[in-house]
Amino acid sequence: MDRITSAKNPVVKGLKALRERKEREAAGRFLVEGEVMLREALKCGLTLREALAEDDLAALAEELEALGARAYVAPRSLLESVCDTRTPQGVCASFDLPAPLPLADAPARIVALDGTQDPGNVGTIWRTADAAGFGGLLFGGGCADPLSPKVQRAAMGSGFRVPFMTAEDLPAALIELSRRGWSVIASDLRGADFYSRPDPGEKYVLVIGNEARGISDATRQAATALVKLPMRGGAESLNAAVAAGIMMYELTRV
Amino acid sequence: MDRITSAKNPVVKGLKALRERKEREAAGRFLVEGEVMLREALKCGLTLREALAEDDLAALAEELEALGARAYVAPRSLLESVCDTRTPQGVCASFDLPAPLPLADAPARIVALDGTQDPGNVGTIWRTADAAGFGGLLFGGGCADPLSPKVQRAAMGSGFRVPFMTAEDLPAALIELSRRGWSVIASDLRGADFYSRPDPGEKYVLVIGNEARGISDATRQAATALVKLPMRGGAESLNAAVAAGIMMYELTRV
Repeated sequence: MDRITSAKNPVVKGLKALRERKEREAAGRFLVEGEVMLREALKCGLTLREALAEDDLAALAEELEALGARAYVAPRSLLESVCDTRTPQGVCASFDLPAPLPLADAPARIVALDGTQDPGNVGTIWRTADAAGFGGLLFGGGCADPLSPKVQRAAMGSGFRVPFMTAEDLPAALIELSRRGWSVIASDLRGADFYSRPDPGEKYVLVIGNEARGISDATRQAATALVKLPMRGGAESLNAAVAAGIMMYELTRV
Repeated sequence: MDRITSAKNPVVKGLKALRERKEREAAGRFLVEGEVMLREALKCGLTLREALAEDDLAALAEELEALGARAYVAPRSLLESVCDTRTPQGVCASFDLPAPLPLADAPARIVALDGTQDPGNVGTIWRTADAAGFGGLLFGGGCADPLSPKVQRAAMGSGFRVPFMTAEDLPAALIELSRRGWSVIASDLRGADFYSRPDPGEKYVLVIGNEARGISDATRQAATALVKLPMRGGAESLNAAVAAGIMMYELTRV
């Protein structure tokens, strides 16, 4: 197994570039950081390409090589230069970008994101969707990139377990789902009391908006119900991931 | 009104120092950043001391001076050096540290934090507690500082509206509250199904633990109920602020 010592090594430069969305799209790969996340990605069937481990983790690098990766060891400083985290957990690896699920195969319970931008919020919503029993996420235009390191870190492995769909024109996708029998419930500060919502049936999409602007007018028109959580004290709104979590757990309550 | 141009000016150095907890405690003051937060602090009756605005906001600085602040204007670069945010909103001010509410005056509905460390989580829990209708937060030892800029920013003004209590020995405080009639419901991965919890009555404390370790053994023993949200997919746990939000809204549901 090769040891890399220069930050100008093309492997190092290639992995580091994957922090940028357009580089991920050009390379068809994304970066997974840390052993726990890496094992989760493997368990979920993602295709491993290159792995970079710090010298102390040479055994792990060998294990990854046996799994088909081109694996390298390097000094810790090089690993730090590649990773998005300030204190990386000793290993990172590139995987093929997973193909989004086609809208035709939409699961019964979906969370749709309408311009939700904060990577921490998006990843946290993904993690909560997994725990609550949702089957997929639907990313509209203007959202944080599902495959950014910050999103995947906040998702804590749920980003590999719960599939995602994409729709540049989210309102059109919501209208299509609605025609095919999904209720489209959108969180909106102008909505009616969430706890008095109509029964959404077995198939539904919960739509969460942008942190500052909420959902778009076109999404509002595509929704079959607009809902809002009660605001009892002085707060005007909730954090997007918290509001999404409260609604998800309430919708999937048995 | 004076204009400050040097980063070595004692006012600038004094305000900048308030980013550190021990400096806040020594000075008896904390820093509030941005006009919206500053107006909220004033509305909530906090005592304004010094204000620093960028040159474009001289009118705001004058208004704050009329309210009793020692106000200064300065170039934007100086304001950036003082504030915790990378792109400060043009003004910051120091206020007297608010006195914590005594445990003797505990409100009926409380969220207690047992070593919850992430300032974003703590602030988000504060904001959600406000919206859900809780009356106060109780900070145990080892939590993020309630008056750190990051906590207050995530709390979005709820940190000024909803009072906080402190208890270095949280389990002792929980036992005292329990004796005085509060139910102590602690979120714990070993807990029973949250949705099957016993009726907590009118007075209760919801305890949220540390992001990695959860609640302490002593807190576990002080609790009258240990609860856990159902985990339906592959996720092993929820983000602390999301779990707290789901439980708060469910507990205060009418």
